[in-house]
Amino acid sequence: MDQSALFENIVKKKSYLCIGLDSELAKIPPSLLEGKDPVFEFNRRIIDATHTFAVAYKPNVAFYECNGAVGWNTLEATVSYIKTNYPDIFVIADAKRGDIGNTSRMYARAFLENMPCDALTVAPYMGEDSVTPFLSCEDKWVILLVLTSNKGADDFQYHSEDGMRLFERVLNVSRNWGNKNNMMYVVGATRSEMIRDIRKLVPDHFLLVPGIGAQGGSLEEISMFGMNSRCGLLVNSSRGIIFADNTENFDSVAARKAAEIQTEMQGYLLKKGLI
Amino acid sequence: MDQSALFENIVKKKSYLCIGLDSELAKIPPSLLEGKDPVFEFNRRIIDATHTFAVAYKPNVAFYECNGAVGWNTLEATVSYIKTNYPDIFVIADAKRGDIGNTSRMYARAFLENMPCDALTVAPYMGEDSVTPFLSCEDKWVILLVLTSNKGADDFQYHSEDGMRLFERVLNVSRNWGNKNNMMYVVGATRSEMIRDIRKLVPDHFLLVPGIGAQGGSLEEISMFGMNSRCGLLVNSSRGIIFADNTENFDSVAARKAAEIQTEMQGYLLKKGLI
Repeated sequence: MDQSALFENIVKKKSYLCIGLDSELAKIPPSLLEGKDPVFEFNRRIIDATHTFAVAYKPNVAFYECNGAVGWNTLEATVSYIKTNYPDIFVIADAKRGDIGNTSRMYARAFLENMPCDALTVAPYMGEDSVTPFLSCEDKWVILLVLTSNKGADDFQYHSEDGMRLFERVLNVSRNWGNKNNMMYVVGATRSEMIRDIRKLVPDHFLLVPGIGAQGGSLEEISMFGMNSRCGLLVNSSRGIIFADNTENFDSVAARKAAEIQTEMQGYLLKKGLI
Repeated sequence: MDQSALFENIVKKKSYLCIGLDSELAKIPPSLLEGKDPVFEFNRRIIDATHTFAVAYKPNVAFYECNGAVGWNTLEATVSYIKTNYPDIFVIADAKRGDIGNTSRMYARAFLENMPCDALTVAPYMGEDSVTPFLSCEDKWVILLVLTSNKGADDFQYHSEDGMRLFERVLNVSRNWGNKNNMMYVVGATRSEMIRDIRKLVPDHFLLVPGIGAQGGSLEEISMFGMNSRCGLLVNSSRGIIFADNTENFDSVAARKAAEIQTEMQGYLLKKGLI
């Protein structure tokens, strides 16, 4: 999927919502626990209920790996379910991988070839040759960590050389590794005051923005500072949607939460003249 | 396993060799391919043949994940095989994970609780709260990326603020997150000229040093600059040992390669007066 196709979906759905499938077994409704694959069943019902309000889903791989081989099968089944039933949806494996070249190629195979994910999140610390193996997968995306939503982002990401902070250096250097059709950047919603600086360096790239909802970031600020002429934003909410309710009605409550965010997003898209 | 136990094993085996189980299916001897789990069988024979020369094994998780759920079973079976048959061996899951706190906890569960690995490699970009969840697992270790062996290390790791390079800042900040009994650092053998600077900041921590063999780092330089009074080094070789031969005799050739390195290591341990 290229940037134009992604923007078309955003316009069609009046939404730039990404729903994070951080589907922790201990948090899903007890009524599902007796089935064969409770996490898949949870995901399936969340996806069926929310897909009209979202343009992307983002399973965080940790929540599957912690269940071992069973969890991998659940992850594969979830990605496959989305792509089979809702092929326009953009699927992000939130894995934060990155290793030396021959090893990153193996991670690319795991997530972008064996599974039909559209994108993989990647950590930048090891530099260019840890990232480029992912970029050679046709029609696939790298989403590089730039400025994360957690407190620990302050430890290294603001480290500054000659006035350029590390997260700006990551942008400045990496924007030449790929292009706006195969690279995005992770910018935490809790860092919305930085989005203006980030847009100076990458005006045309999409940003994946986690941290609204449970982590407290503001959708309004993110949209005001970060939106460009092709939206340029995928804003993620995980726990605030998928764990909004713990009863048998969890899916309709999740749909209502997703619809609320979509409605707010529609307002910002209108204000910007994009729909 | 604490630092004393690790040092005891080093003294007993006269070796600080870590063998990397980067067991790529396409590279293992064709004679194994007809078995039920060729990668496990390959690992088992490598381990049985080389364990007297090594104090640690390091499966790189990418080479297992690329085989999906089957690969996860192989990884679990390999770690379990080592810990059952050679309980003194230190097992490192080379996964280079790291995410916000609640997510890192899931990775900790995957590798340090569900699997009996002793240690996990972690990327530092997201800072303290992405690393500390791993440190709360008793008797387990975080091995934090500091200065990697690949060319891309130059992109960000040398980024300097007030004379302190990023890799030094990672050391300086992170050494307070844990202690010498639950944290090590990855320093590529190809960066041996930097080990003196690194030892000034972390004189007592162990360093995991990849990059000898296929990547060209020098064991002599690493040992000269990096060894401390409790050795303080685990030096890894992967492809140079496990893929030294592609015939039915691959395990005895691997053993010979491992023995050569162990003999060289014994010399450096003697020179330092540690054995």
